[in-house]
Amino acid sequence: MDLRIRKAKKTDSKEIIRLIKELAAFEKLNPPDAAAQRRLIKDAFRRNPPFRIILAFDGKEAVGYAFYFFSYSTFLARPTLYLEDIYISDKCRGNGAGKKLMSELMKIAKEKKCGRLEWIVLDWNKNAIDFYDRLGAKHMKNWYFYRYTL
Amino acid sequence: MDLRIRKAKKTDSKEIIRLIKELAAFEKLNPPDAAAQRRLIKDAFRRNPPFRIILAFDGKEAVGYAFYFFSYSTFLARPTLYLEDIYISDKCRGNGAGKKLMSELMKIAKEKKCGRLEWIVLDWNKNAIDFYDRLGAKHMKNWYFYRYTL
Repeated sequence: MDLRIRKAKKTDSKEIIRLIKELAAFEKLNPPDAAAQRRLIKDAFRRNPPFRIILAFDGKEAVGYAFYFFSYSTFLARPTLYLEDIYISDKCRGNGAGKKLMSELMKIAKEKKCGRLEWIVLDWNKNAIDFYDRLGAKHMKNWYFYRYTL
Repeated sequence: MDLRIRKAKKTDSKEIIRLIKELAAFEKLNPPDAAAQRRLIKDAFRRNPPFRIILAFDGKEAVGYAFYFFSYSTFLARPTLYLEDIYISDKCRGNGAGKKLMSELMKIAKEKKCGRLEWIVLDWNKNAIDFYDRLGAKHMKNWYFYRYTL
């Protein structure tokens, strides 16, 4: 493995879409449809994008990514780095790519004077949960996650 | 009750701080300290603020608020309205102020072409949970909420 992490560029669009489809299949969720894929790429690379992407490469091949944006803690009065998605291709798991992505995110969060990183994880994804626990992250068991669909 | 909802202005700062302290006491969490209060107000009313505030008034008195910002769903490729805090003063609960705040948030979310509203709630806050359930929101039980503190 020749692992490198860098910000995504518009020329990475195809790889980003390939990886997000892999993640959807892995999470057993509906992947973005064709229109959503176009919106996603347009949003990712517009001025003041609503989220940011970093990619993990093994040599020239994109093998993972993280989508994140800045939310805000009103009690800390500091931004929070919110990790919307993190994904490593099946064949590359266990090689440190996830840890490298998380280290990069922690670095970015510190630069932005964030107080926290936050994310959600599916309850059956034991490998991911173990990974987060090893990093020293905390499962906030007393908070329920709610969604209202428009 | 003479309920009105409007966007917060800088001149509402004192009322905002009073209400956030009430919320912290209610949630048994540490309120923002003096420095955090100053950062919060500075951030709320700067250019491109990291979060937005709407207030509920009963006549001239601020009796509740909602802090929100826009997160993003990569699968929908649409913004999400993320509700960071919602609070109604004890004496005003049960008078429809919470519902008015939520209706206003739903209206804002629709205008911004969001696909969802999301938030977290403390597991012991049965009144809030019942309120969200009545609105038709869904407790996403299979997602765990994780936090890493910097």
